[in-house]
Amino acid sequence: DSKLKIFTCNSNPKLASQIADYIGIPMGESHTTSFSDGEIQVKLSESVRGCHVYIVQSTCGPVNDNLMELLVMVDALKRASAKSINVVIPYYGYARQDRKARSRDPITAKLVANLIEKAGAHRVITMDLHAMQIQGFFDIPVDHLLGVPILAQYFRSKQIENPVVVSPDHGGVVRARKLADFLNAPLAIIDKRRPEPNVSEVMNIIGNIEGKTAILIDDIIDTAGTIVLGANALMEGGVKEVYACCTHPVLSGPAHERLENSPIKEIIVTDTIPIRSANPTSKLKVLSVAPLMGEAIIRVHEELSISKLFEIE
Amino acid sequence: DSKLKIFTCNSNPKLASQIADYIGIPMGESHTTSFSDGEIQVKLSESVRGCHVYIVQSTCGPVNDNLMELLVMVDALKRASAKSINVVIPYYGYARQDRKARSRDPITAKLVANLIEKAGAHRVITMDLHAMQIQGFFDIPVDHLLGVPILAQYFRSKQIENPVVVSPDHGGVVRARKLADFLNAPLAIIDKRRPEPNVSEVMNIIGNIEGKTAILIDDIIDTAGTIVLGANALMEGGVKEVYACCTHPVLSGPAHERLENSPIKEIIVTDTIPIRSANPTSKLKVLSVAPLMGEAIIRVHEELSISKLFEIE
Ligand SMILES: Nc1ncnc2c1ncn2[C@@H]1O[C@H](COP(=O)(O)O)[C@@H](O)[C@H]1O
Ligand SMILES: Nc1ncnc2c1ncn2[C@@H]1O[C@H](COP(=O)(O)O)[C@@H](O)[C@H]1O
Repeated sequence: DSKLKIFTCNSNPKLASQIADYIGIPMGESHTTSFSDGEIQVKLSESVRGCHVYIVQSTCGPVNDNLMELLVMVDALKRASAKSINVVIPYYGYARQDRKARSRDPITAKLVANLIEKAGAHRVITMDLHAMQIQGFFDIPVDHLLGVPILAQYFRSKQIENPVVVSPDHGGVVRARKLADFLNAPLAIIDKRRPEPNVSEVMNIIGNIEGKTAILIDDIIDTAGTIVLGANALMEGGVKEVYACCTHPVLSGPAHERLENSPIKEIIVTDTIPIRSANPTSKLKVLSVAPLMGEAIIRVHEELSISKLFEIE
Repeated sequence: DSKLKIFTCNSNPKLASQIADYIGIPMGESHTTSFSDGEIQVKLSESVRGCHVYIVQSTCGPVNDNLMELLVMVDALKRASAKSINVVIPYYGYARQDRKARSRDPITAKLVANLIEKAGAHRVITMDLHAMQIQGFFDIPVDHLLGVPILAQYFRSKQIENPVVVSPDHGGVVRARKLADFLNAPLAIIDKRRPEPNVSEVMNIIGNIEGKTAILIDDIIDTAGTIVLGANALMEGGVKEVYACCTHPVLSGPAHERLENSPIKEIIVTDTIPIRSANPTSKLKVLSVAPLMGEAIIRVHEELSISKLFEIE
C-alpha cells in the first residue's frame, strides 16, 4: 500500500494545509523560494520515493511564477522517484486562451497542458475549467470538479425566497442551469446584442425576473465588468435584489471597486484563488473547496469514482 | 528561397532591433502584452506562413515571465505555420540548476530545455551557457556562441600593458584560458579553500600577478560577491589594477553597490541582459552582441558553419 503525500508551492498554502487536515495527514515538507535573481528554487525536505504525491497549486496571478513553481516542483518530485505525481490545480490559468479566436492567436491553454505533462505529471485534478474542452488538451487523466454544489449549498442555507438564477451570457447557461436545478429555481439569461457595429450593446433579459431575488453565476469574475453590467440590467428589469457568485475570484484591475459600488448585495466565491487585494470589497463571502478537494484526493487515491461528489441530494 | 523574419518579446527589444538592422531586415511586427490579470497575450501582426522565424528573447529576470513569453510566442508562430522556429536566447536562465547538487534537487535547466522543445522550437542559438552540458539537454540543434572574442577585442583596443587574465575559481579556467590566448597574456587562478568546516575561506592565488594589470573573467556576474572578493585578493596580492568582465550581467541584489565600492576599475559586460537597475554602477561598459548574433543568424539561415566566428585573428 503506497503512501499519499501532499505538497504545495506558493499560490494556495492555506488551502493546501486545509486539504491535508481534511485528509488527516501532515503537509509534505518542502520550500519553494527564489534566488537573488528571481529564479525559483525548490527544496524537498523529505523522501518521496515510492509515494503518490499530490501538489496543490493554482496558476492564478502571478500566473507565470505560479506555473513555473508547479513545473519545477513536478521535476523535483519526478527525479526524487515519486511513484505518481498528481497535480491539483484548483484554478487553471490561461484557460480563456483555449482557441484561435483571431488568426495567429496562440492556444496557451493547450501549451500549458503540454508543459505540465512534459514536466512529468501523471494526473490533473482541477475545477470548473473555463472550457470543458481543455480536458482534451491533456493525454493524462483529468478529474474535473464542480463548484456549483458548494455555491448551491450556501444559497440553500440562506433560504432565499423567490430566487431566479441568471446567466450573465449565453456561454454560461449550462452552469446556471445546474445551479437552478440544485435550488429548484427558474432560470433567466442576459442576452447581449450589438444592434449595429459601433453602437453600444443592448442588454435584454430572457425570462421572468420581476420581484425575484436574482443569483448571477459565472465561472470567473475577473475585472467584474460583465457581472456588474448584468446586475445593473437586472435591477432596471425589476428584481428585488441581486447576489453574484463564481468559483474563481480572479478580481483583477478595477474589480473590487466596481463590485463595491455595484447594486450587488453579496458576492459568493471559493478559495481556488486567494483574495490578495489590499482593499477588498466588503461584499465578499469566501467558501472553501478544501473538503471537496480533500474528498476527491482520497477517492482518486483509493481508485473510487468521484462523480458521486456532485450528485443532487 | 524561404523568408527570414525576426521577432522579439519584452526581454531585449533593443538588442533584437539591432540584430535586425545588422541583417538588414525590418523587425517582424508583433505585440506581447498582458491581460488585466497578468496573463501573457501575444499578437502576431503579419503572416509567417512558410517563413524561417528567429525569436530573440533572453530568459533573464523577470525570468518566469520572459520564459513564458518565449513559449507563447513559439506556440503562436507554430500555429501560424512558420516553416522553422529558431529561438535566439542570448542569456539562458536557470542554467545554474544543471545537476542535482543536493539530493532531491530539480534540474531546472533540463526542464526549461524540454519546455522550449515541447512548445515547438526547432533550433536554439545561445551564448556562453553556464555549463556546456546544457547543449545535451536539447534534442534539437544548439548553436553555441562565445562572448570571449568580443571581450578580447575590447581589451586589445585598450592596449593594456602587462596584463594577466584571472579566473575567479577553478570552474572558469577554460574560459579564462581562451581570453588569455586572445590577449597573448599569462593566466592566474584564484584558489578558494576552506581549511576546516565553519572556518572562513582562504583566497590563494596560483600564478604570478605582482605589478600586472589583472583581468578577472566569469560567465555570469550575479550578486558580484565572488568577483569582488577576487578583486580584493588580487589587490592584496600586489596587482597594479583590476578589470572585471563577463558575458551575462545578471547583477541582482547588492551587485551594483558592491561593484561601485570595489577596487575594480571597470566592468566590461555584454547586452545579452539589459541593465535595469535604477542606480547602476558608473563602472559598467556594455559591449553589443548584435553583430555576432546577426552574423550567426545569417550563417545559420544560409546553412554555413558558424565556427569561423570565433577564430583568433
Ligand atoms: N486573461 C485574459 N483576460 C481577459 N481576456 C482574455 C484572457 N485570456 C483570453 N482572453 C480573451 O477572452 C476571450 C475568450 O473568452 P470566452 O469567449 O469567454 O471564452 C478571447 O477572445 C481571448 O482573447
Ligand atoms: N539563480 C541562482 N542563483 C544563485 N545560485 C544558484 C542559482 N541557480 C542555482 N544556483 C546554485 O548554484 C550552484 C551551481 O553553480 P555552479 O557551481 O557555479 O555551477 C548550485 O548549488 C545551485 O544550487
